[in-house]
Amino acid sequence: MVFLPNCIQINPIIRLEMQNILIIGAGKSSAYLIDFLLENSIEKNRKIIVADLEEDIAQKKIKGHPQAKAATIIVEDEGNRKSLIQQSDIVISMLPAFLHPIIAKDCLEMGKHFFTASYESEDLRKLKDQIGAKNLLFLNECGLDPGLDHMSAMQVIEREKALGHEILSFKSYTGGVLAPESEDNPWKYKFTWNPRNVVLAGQGVSRFIRDGKFKYIPYHMLFQRLDKISFEDAGEFDGYPNRDSLVYRRVYGLESIPTILRGTLRRSGFCQSWNVFVQLGMTDDSFEMDLPKNYTLLDFIDSFLPFHKYKTIQEKLKEILPWVDEEVIEKINWLGLFSAENLPRSKGSPAAILQAILEKKWALNENDRDMIVMQHLFEIKTPKGIKKLTSSLVCKGQNQAYTAMAKTVGLPLAIAVDMFLEGKIKEKGLLIPISKSIYQPILSELEKYNIQFQERQYEI
Amino acid sequence: MVFLPNCIQINPIIRLEMQNILIIGAGKSSAYLIDFLLENSIEKNRKIIVADLEEDIAQKKIKGHPQAKAATIIVEDEGNRKSLIQQSDIVISMLPAFLHPIIAKDCLEMGKHFFTASYESEDLRKLKDQIGAKNLLFLNECGLDPGLDHMSAMQVIEREKALGHEILSFKSYTGGVLAPESEDNPWKYKFTWNPRNVVLAGQGVSRFIRDGKFKYIPYHMLFQRLDKISFEDAGEFDGYPNRDSLVYRRVYGLESIPTILRGTLRRSGFCQSWNVFVQLGMTDDSFEMDLPKNYTLLDFIDSFLPFHKYKTIQEKLKEILPWVDEEVIEKINWLGLFSAENLPRSKGSPAAILQAILEKKWALNENDRDMIVMQHLFEIKTPKGIKKLTSSLVCKGQNQAYTAMAKTVGLPLAIAVDMFLEGKIKEKGLLIPISKSIYQPILSELEKYNIQFQERQYEI
Repeated sequence: MVFLPNCIQINPIIRLEMQNILIIGAGKSSAYLIDFLLENSIEKNRKIIVADLEEDIAQKKIKGHPQAKAATIIVEDEGNRKSLIQQSDIVISMLPAFLHPIIAKDCLEMGKHFFTASYESEDLRKLKDQIGAKNLLFLNECGLDPGLDHMSAMQVIEREKALGHEILSFKSYTGGVLAPESEDNPWKYKFTWNPRNVVLAGQGVSRFIRDGKFKYIPYHMLFQRLDKISFEDAGEFDGYPNRDSLVYRRVYGLESIPTILRGTLRRSGFCQSWNVFVQLGMTDDSFEMDLPKNYTLLDFIDSFLPFHKYKTIQEKLKEILPWVDEEVIEKINWLGLFSAENLPRSKGSPAAILQAILEKKWALNENDRDMIVMQHLFEIKTPKGIKKLTSSLVCKGQNQAYTAMAKTVGLPLAIAVDMFLEGKIKEKGLLIPISKSIYQPILSELEKYNIQFQERQYEI
Repeated sequence: MVFLPNCIQINPIIRLEMQNILIIGAGKSSAYLIDFLLENSIEKNRKIIVADLEEDIAQKKIKGHPQAKAATIIVEDEGNRKSLIQQSDIVISMLPAFLHPIIAKDCLEMGKHFFTASYESEDLRKLKDQIGAKNLLFLNECGLDPGLDHMSAMQVIEREKALGHEILSFKSYTGGVLAPESEDNPWKYKFTWNPRNVVLAGQGVSRFIRDGKFKYIPYHMLFQRLDKISFEDAGEFDGYPNRDSLVYRRVYGLESIPTILRGTLRRSGFCQSWNVFVQLGMTDDSFEMDLPKNYTLLDFIDSFLPFHKYKTIQEKLKEILPWVDEEVIEKINWLGLFSAENLPRSKGSPAAILQAILEKKWALNENDRDMIVMQHLFEIKTPKGIKKLTSSLVCKGQNQAYTAMAKTVGLPLAIAVDMFLEGKIKEKGLLIPISKSIYQPILSELEKYNIQFQERQYEI
């Protein structure tokens, strides 16, 4: 099988050539991706192999579709891995990000195109020239965040620039949260994605630029330096800065912008209570605790509080963190942290033990729905003055199999793969979806699936 | 040259055999060490080679003594290193701790004894059996902290245990500070030892046990969870917990003690103001800043504060850290951090830039004297009830060449080497000075040099 040179017009006869797609990783985020690619696979003459460490999981996802096949993949097993990749024209990796370079190197060696929803890594950047030389497309950051965030931001940025306007300020927030109807605990939060990533979120120093001045926020200050972000149809959220926003000046072609910040959203009130765990050191992942077997949840939180002969945990909490109010106490109490309940695990980092506690309390019920919220906030200089522009996305999941997270991660990726195979995306090399020829058709297609940004503008 | 088997009585005739000592590293901490070993070197028939990367520095330290020789050592140059070690019977390494394993392995290979004032490392522990098999003494942690702290603590612990008493609580604090007469700035602090270590002090999570309950304090909480520590002759200090105190239960033979804590001392008031830097993230060493060349000290501190159009830095500081009072503001102001002074460096981690600022302000004057303060606080159950016992050391430096730090680090090490060469320390293997046969003679000798612990006891 050879790929069509770009110059040849796609026509029905050539289209009869079979296209083989390998999807590696059939976990929760793959549902929409697989369904989308299977949908027109007969008429588009495509075969899809879905490979997972557990073939069962892959089998369930393909639902007996005639164009699809489930397979087992053991990434460490070179023979197994390469034989799967060899059979395909295009590989989509839904594996944890650290495994991408292994697959990417095989793809480069065997001349296969490579797609992910993960950050473009240093390892991949080292292959950039070779990818170009082989005329392959390695498209990363084509999911939700990173992915949809880039595409929807670039749409506004390039449109406004084309009008001769100047972007003065750009803030962009994304959150994976609960749909309001499922917010049935005091935290209004449950784990809708990888719990470990949620517990460790924000660690390190966040960097951005504000009115031309560099700003740095250490982890322990993050959850008290919040922006209020409102959605017409989803309510109020807290936004906190996320890692290094400075690099996006170059990515978005906004090298001299005075204000740029990327951040994460949580339902209002969440961050204040979460900050208790951050302040006490309960999200630390740098050392292993080995607590006595009989330690309770109360003993666990108390081990991060000063000793006192008579004072209760609540009293000590309020003393050491004077902003702790009854609402915060109630949330912590709801997690059982003031109770004599046994610890779910006694060994591990504080973060690992906290995660185990939270996984019991923040588990999704069968009918819970998740929600993705994203908002870009621009300040733009026009000939008439300065206008504010917000571009907002709210996307709710259907159920636990078809989550908003899986939809917003999987559909952009699936559409990108489809459009590439259809010859509608012609660019090659190591790319992220920031050029109009890539993001425009993807965003248009996404609107059909109700993933649509709402814009509001007003002068200030 | 062979060493005397332990069974042979040292006598003047055998003593005529020359003893060769190699001291590696002739920096600030070596002054007392070198002087002490040179003092009786003629009558004890010892030759001393002082080796440093800069031979000049070694030359100055030996002051033309006939028994001494200065040499250049380039640790990375195996030939040079091994030829110096080969000429010696005993090696004292005053190098930075990470270089010790290189020297230690040579010593093991060539059958030389090895002494340091640094923590016994995992690398050294791997050599333990071989050190024993070759009948060598590798004595580490024989300086101030670690060193004097172990020896003086074990003296009390073993004495009280021998009386049938039970140690219920043991806290031990050490600080390298300014002598009161040199406390001539609002911080009452200058750098009396490695500035980088001072700026990074306390990073990580501190661990100890209090009344039978494990306690963990993250770095950002450390400088607000202080003990008040008093010295009769040196005044009041703040003590904060220092890294992992739990391991010392085994080291000190106090496996089931309900309370143990090791900590660091700073002059009262220092920690509260230092905490501003910790809270803002200015001591972070995890990433590199690359600030504009024209950034001022005020721009630097402002980069860790929220943006505001009108508020002053002081106002923003007080808003984000409500405990900041005029005294704290004055200390920060004294460092120039509210001024338009240029940054001494614009590249580096926040900690490195802060260190460069502090090094200009906290430099010692020619006549400044440093001071070492150490205090052990015990609670001990006796047949009569519970008594409190404190054992305190205050040691002032003479001047910048003969500092209290150099004295308390160098003399214990020098005395240990001398006593070992005299046959008064007979133990072999990989050791730290926690057995009576080692600490007792060293502590007695130190008293002659005015390094003497004062004990106070009272019933409670």
